[in-house]
Amino acid sequence: MNLQVVGKSLPRVDAVAKATGRADYVADMALPGMLFGKILRSPYPHARLVHIDVSKAKRLSGVRAVVTGKDVPRHRYGIWPDIPFTNDQVGLAVDKVRYLGEEVAALAAVDEDTAQEALQLMEVEYEQLAAVFNPQDAMEPAAPQIHEVEKNIAWPISFNFGDVEQGFRESDYVQEDTFITHHQCHSTIETHVSLARFDPPNRYTLWTSTQSLDTTRGELATSLGVPLSDIRIIKAHVGGGFGCKTRMYAAHFLSAVLAKASGRPVKIVYDREEQFIATLERHAFSLKLTTGVKKDGTLVAKECTAIADGGAYNSHGPVIIGRAGAQLSLIYRVPNMRYTGYLVYTNKPVCGAFRGFGNLQARFADESQMDMIAHQLGIDPVEIRLKNAMQPDHTTPHRWRVTSCGLSQAIDSAAQGANWRQRRGKMPKGKGLGIACGGYISGTYVRHNAAGAFIKVEEDGGVTVIAGASDVGQGSDTVLCQIAAEELGISLEKVKMTFGDSDVTPLDLGSFSSRITFVVGNAVKAAAQDAKRQLLQVVAETLEANVEDLEAERGRMYVRGTPDRGLSFADAVKTSLKKGRPVLGRGSYNPDYCEPLERETGAGNISPAYSFGAMTVEIEVDEETGQVRFVNAVSAFDCGRAINPCLVEGQMEGSVVMGQGWAFTEEVYRDKGQSLNASLLDYRIPTALDIPEISSVIVEPVDPNGPFGAKGMSEGTMLPVAPALANAIFEATGVRIKELPFTPDRLLAGLERKKRRRDQ
Amino acid sequence: MNLQVVGKSLPRVDAVAKATGRADYVADMALPGMLFGKILRSPYPHARLVHIDVSKAKRLSGVRAVVTGKDVPRHRYGIWPDIPFTNDQVGLAVDKVRYLGEEVAALAAVDEDTAQEALQLMEVEYEQLAAVFNPQDAMEPAAPQIHEVEKNIAWPISFNFGDVEQGFRESDYVQEDTFITHHQCHSTIETHVSLARFDPPNRYTLWTSTQSLDTTRGELATSLGVPLSDIRIIKAHVGGGFGCKTRMYAAHFLSAVLAKASGRPVKIVYDREEQFIATLERHAFSLKLTTGVKKDGTLVAKECTAIADGGAYNSHGPVIIGRAGAQLSLIYRVPNMRYTGYLVYTNKPVCGAFRGFGNLQARFADESQMDMIAHQLGIDPVEIRLKNAMQPDHTTPHRWRVTSCGLSQAIDSAAQGANWRQRRGKMPKGKGLGIACGGYISGTYVRHNAAGAFIKVEEDGGVTVIAGASDVGQGSDTVLCQIAAEELGISLEKVKMTFGDSDVTPLDLGSFSSRITFVVGNAVKAAAQDAKRQLLQVVAETLEANVEDLEAERGRMYVRGTPDRGLSFADAVKTSLKKGRPVLGRGSYNPDYCEPLERETGAGNISPAYSFGAMTVEIEVDEETGQVRFVNAVSAFDCGRAINPCLVEGQMEGSVVMGQGWAFTEEVYRDKGQSLNASLLDYRIPTALDIPEISSVIVEPVDPNGPFGAKGMSEGTMLPVAPALANAIFEATGVRIKELPFTPDRLLAGLERKKRRRDQ
Repeated sequence: MNLQVVGKSLPRVDAVAKATGRADYVADMALPGMLFGKILRSPYPHARLVHIDVSKAKRLSGVRAVVTGKDVPRHRYGIWPDIPFTNDQVGLAVDKVRYLGEEVAALAAVDEDTAQEALQLMEVEYEQLAAVFNPQDAMEPAAPQIHEVEKNIAWPISFNFGDVEQGFRESDYVQEDTFITHHQCHSTIETHVSLARFDPPNRYTLWTSTQSLDTTRGELATSLGVPLSDIRIIKAHVGGGFGCKTRMYAAHFLSAVLAKASGRPVKIVYDREEQFIATLERHAFSLKLTTGVKKDGTLVAKECTAIADGGAYNSHGPVIIGRAGAQLSLIYRVPNMRYTGYLVYTNKPVCGAFRGFGNLQARFADESQMDMIAHQLGIDPVEIRLKNAMQPDHTTPHRWRVTSCGLSQAIDSAAQGANWRQRRGKMPKGKGLGIACGGYISGTYVRHNAAGAFIKVEEDGGVTVIAGASDVGQGSDTVLCQIAAEELGISLEKVKMTFGDSDVTPLDLGSFSSRITFVVGNAVKAAAQDAKRQLLQVVAETLEANVEDLEAERGRMYVRGTPDRGLSFADAVKTSLKKGRPVLGRGSYNPDYCEPLERETGAGNISPAYSFGAMTVEIEVDEETGQVRFVNAVSAFDCGRAINPCLVEGQMEGSVVMGQGWAFTEEVYRDKGQSLNASLLDYRIPTALDIPEISSVIVEPVDPNGPFGAKGMSEGTMLPVAPALANAIFEATGVRIKELPFTPDRLLAGLERKKRRRDQ
Repeated sequence: MNLQVVGKSLPRVDAVAKATGRADYVADMALPGMLFGKILRSPYPHARLVHIDVSKAKRLSGVRAVVTGKDVPRHRYGIWPDIPFTNDQVGLAVDKVRYLGEEVAALAAVDEDTAQEALQLMEVEYEQLAAVFNPQDAMEPAAPQIHEVEKNIAWPISFNFGDVEQGFRESDYVQEDTFITHHQCHSTIETHVSLARFDPPNRYTLWTSTQSLDTTRGELATSLGVPLSDIRIIKAHVGGGFGCKTRMYAAHFLSAVLAKASGRPVKIVYDREEQFIATLERHAFSLKLTTGVKKDGTLVAKECTAIADGGAYNSHGPVIIGRAGAQLSLIYRVPNMRYTGYLVYTNKPVCGAFRGFGNLQARFADESQMDMIAHQLGIDPVEIRLKNAMQPDHTTPHRWRVTSCGLSQAIDSAAQGANWRQRRGKMPKGKGLGIACGGYISGTYVRHNAAGAFIKVEEDGGVTVIAGASDVGQGSDTVLCQIAAEELGISLEKVKMTFGDSDVTPLDLGSFSSRITFVVGNAVKAAAQDAKRQLLQVVAETLEANVEDLEAERGRMYVRGTPDRGLSFADAVKTSLKKGRPVLGRGSYNPDYCEPLERETGAGNISPAYSFGAMTVEIEVDEETGQVRFVNAVSAFDCGRAINPCLVEGQMEGSVVMGQGWAFTEEVYRDKGQSLNASLLDYRIPTALDIPEISSVIVEPVDPNGPFGAKGMSEGTMLPVAPALANAIFEATGVRIKELPFTPDRLLAGLERKKRRRDQ
């Protein structure tokens, strides 16, 4: 393929706006007569709401509306509308609160100070209830009951492929470990925000920071009990999502009901503390993992029992607990596999979607154990991975149909980048190399897995892509514009993309499951093809040529092989318009070889493609302090064709940094449900000073179904970071850390244990 | 046709928003960091700009940008880019000013008071030039030259069909008169407004009140010298347009350049005085009209020489002067016709598009003279009109191809509504009945005459119409939603329409030439058909039926004749989505039997349909005061099929009132170019107390090409008002007033002349 725009590291379409500070975020917006909303939050992790007296707050001058759970619709909602008990949330707490920070009431006032003052005037009588903060305690028979489910198990899941017992019997070696992962906060730089207006008789419009117009609108409609079409959601620039803006959040519901109650637009912007205590966290997992292998390292059987701490409500937890298990057979081929997962309620903030989506936790366990097995069998960690690595055109036990797969190549590249074969095992004391792998879906089946797009071609040859995909910082608008430009044979500067607007942009599920490039990219390509077809027809008529003989490239449409015989793209548009034919494209994409998961078996090919990668890391341990210095990382990832290599590298680098935070410093400290570090000062995300040197290697096995061969890659690249680090720490120190994060005290304790063992 | 939605007087889709005061207009909007722009205007009608000193204004605290003609792009623009000398405008005056009120400089400051104060600090040195205020003087050889054209003639036009001399020779009677019409101000309740932001490197976004995204954007691009695609225009609710918001206005250009200069969004809102002195007026005409008829009233030949006072710049004047002549052969069949028109510059505000667009002035002359001829020949005014009335399937000398035509029926209906045959000629002293006719195009050829539309179908069966047509208060959004609803077989409540946004809404010329219902209506119908086709296909697959056997009606899609065998519209959408097929419609319409005017002959079928009507009025004259009371009007108009009869009636009633204002009270008084009545207190538009009783009769000869048979009708209905009143005044008093407006002093003078003649 002779590509002109795709495959080039062109500047992002939003680069100048963002670099010059002119990009507007919803927090910057104002509407005439706008009020400021604030939320009253529970100070207790578990309590009955006895009485709320809002009279003083209502009397404060400047307060225009106050709502409690009794004043607003109470329709339950959740990710699976067809399984009622999983729909465990309502817009505002009614009878009790289940975590410290939960929304109890909300109000809107003419300015922020008045709203804040009014919050102090709200009088709530609580009856405190016993609370529980970890899933093991929560599953005890005597544990306080958080929802009406047995043992606080929100969602159990199990599946079984092949014969695991037989597999273990046939194994030469079986390793069993328990791994512990912790919560992580999304720490988006832009906090949650929603600006709502209500237009009688029945119309809500919300401007918000979101990853998914579709889910946000759907859940708002459900929770309010109104038709979908009564709600319009408009997206602005998004200052980071990473999963926590995939669904409706309280600011949406509350700005909407306050707007209706007050008759004025209402804006709610979370402060940083709210962002920490009342938005989604990553699920903490404990995973008991048992793996059986042949002497040569060939995987025979795997069994895993996972318990996920889901916090007070389900959110995406029921999917995440399943996904953790399913991906255990994606990276390495394993014929026998059993998985049991429990999503458990606790009195903590809700856990939900977060870059990696359950895969991260399971991969930490699996990749750590892979190294432990290699160590036991005396096999090089690279070799054991290459032996078992997923290969192209393979179907996993879950019926995940892998088409393109560059895993072996990625392992080779990552190893080579680290000079693995020369250096591994020969590092100076305190230094270590580690490797781990990852892999991910490119979109997932949710009601469907389709997307649509419109293309508008302007009179001067400019093009607008109208699609509902949310660029949340990853650069997807740029990628979609490149795809349209390539298809139309014009330069990227001629193409722009509109923000998502649920009234206008074609239905799209949103930015999650690394789906945009693949799924929306194919839809945009189809819409561009539709527009191109119309233009080529016009050119064919003008030139008296056959439309099949024409091609579009470098801003021209011409007879193949005779570039002079043609029209410029802009002239083709003008000619079309003179003939009375505005050029309007529409297209959609449906990977019809995808399917929903079967709930009974857990099987089903949910994604149209799977991407794979490996990472080597080098670290240096200070055995006195227990500090680990992350020296460098080589990330090699198969993203099909890289539409924009620079953006691919950006995702890979971002993944290393986010994985580094999860591995080393990002941990929520709580005392009886109260966060002790709800600020960016105390909750430590890596800064520029902490970041290792990162080399990115793009592996490009062109995917047969991706747009120009591309696949998703924004989440999978994060999976290897923590286990690669754990494996490197083991190489450097002989200490195997099976619990995240790798804090100095954990490492020092490990070194102490090792020393004691040696001394014995 | 079994219509369910079309043909019903359903409430406007914007009714609640407007009735409750929640509809936002651009003046209500704010952007972060927004500045307020003000314009410095010339105090002289004609002057050379010697020097502008903006230094004091710039130094005022809070002023962020000041621009003069030297600081901004000076690309000439106009309606006909291919005829350079007609492109007589630039964004900001450079060397001289040509009317009192012309834009000399502009500035932006942090608030309106500061901006106003800064205006006072601008120091401009002018060299006054001799000015000329009427076209007769302007055409004198010694007249001051306003532009570089001879005799200040901006645009001359002439055409000739048949043999006029021969026609007059063959006539039994020839009547010649000169009629004078005056300027009228649009008096939109919402003033001109533009809010602009500039995003580096090259992107302008404007929120504005406009009738045409297309023209506004095109002229802004031309005047700034930037590509069309660099500009995005977004429309909000429009508080009246009537023609004065069809093109770019100074607020657009100046808010854009100030936004770029200041790096901040800039809003400019005209005050009422600016609206009067610096926005478009209706052209004042003098028309010398000669008509030859047979004894029985049959028209044989017509000749007209028209001089239009165009003010300081062309705007749409060159089209208007031509249209005035062309329509002289539209209402009544006349085989021989000659027309000469001159558009002349004067040192007055720019004249331009205004409901009726030249037709109004010519119709006043033609309909007045028709009655004078009838009077001379002793024929009833109704009969002479019926005898000559345009008939269906007739081509005028200008090659205007009339398809459907209900003129005769409209004349009958209007006469019948006034009880004409019983009452005419038998009215008590001082009372009179009058009749006049009108007719109009339904869209016009401008580069092309096409339109496009997208349709988005929501998951719950809601539908959004995405089209660029501007609802300027006439209710076109409602009409387009009704057309989409009818085509899709769903109720109007399920359909909404987005505001025009040049990035997103398909290309559309705008709201003028009474085109939306016909042209955009057909495009929306095509887009809805496209969506329907997709859904019917899904239903056919589901029912295992033939798609040809299905129909869509009353919210269902079912096998014709078996309504039970089908799916609800919403279920069809859901089913489609489950199959991975988002429902996206696109459509366009191009009346390929239309053509541009030939400049040499003035001929060409510019419109896809023509609508016709007649009006009878009853008046009562107080001969002591010269006051005329407008008692009632019966307006009968052929609009093809009325998509929404209530909105059709609204247009007919609005036309009567606007025509009444033009006929009686709306006149600009000027002293040396300075308006003496630039306020709604002194410039009198009719109030609720002045308005006559109005009966509207909708004549519905279904048009073969209109959407569901509809045609345009928002302008044509205004044409008969003034001449019908003049004819009624003649009947009541014997005084023929050939000069508008019909002020008491003109009527008293006429009565005085009549008395003197009688006394002689």
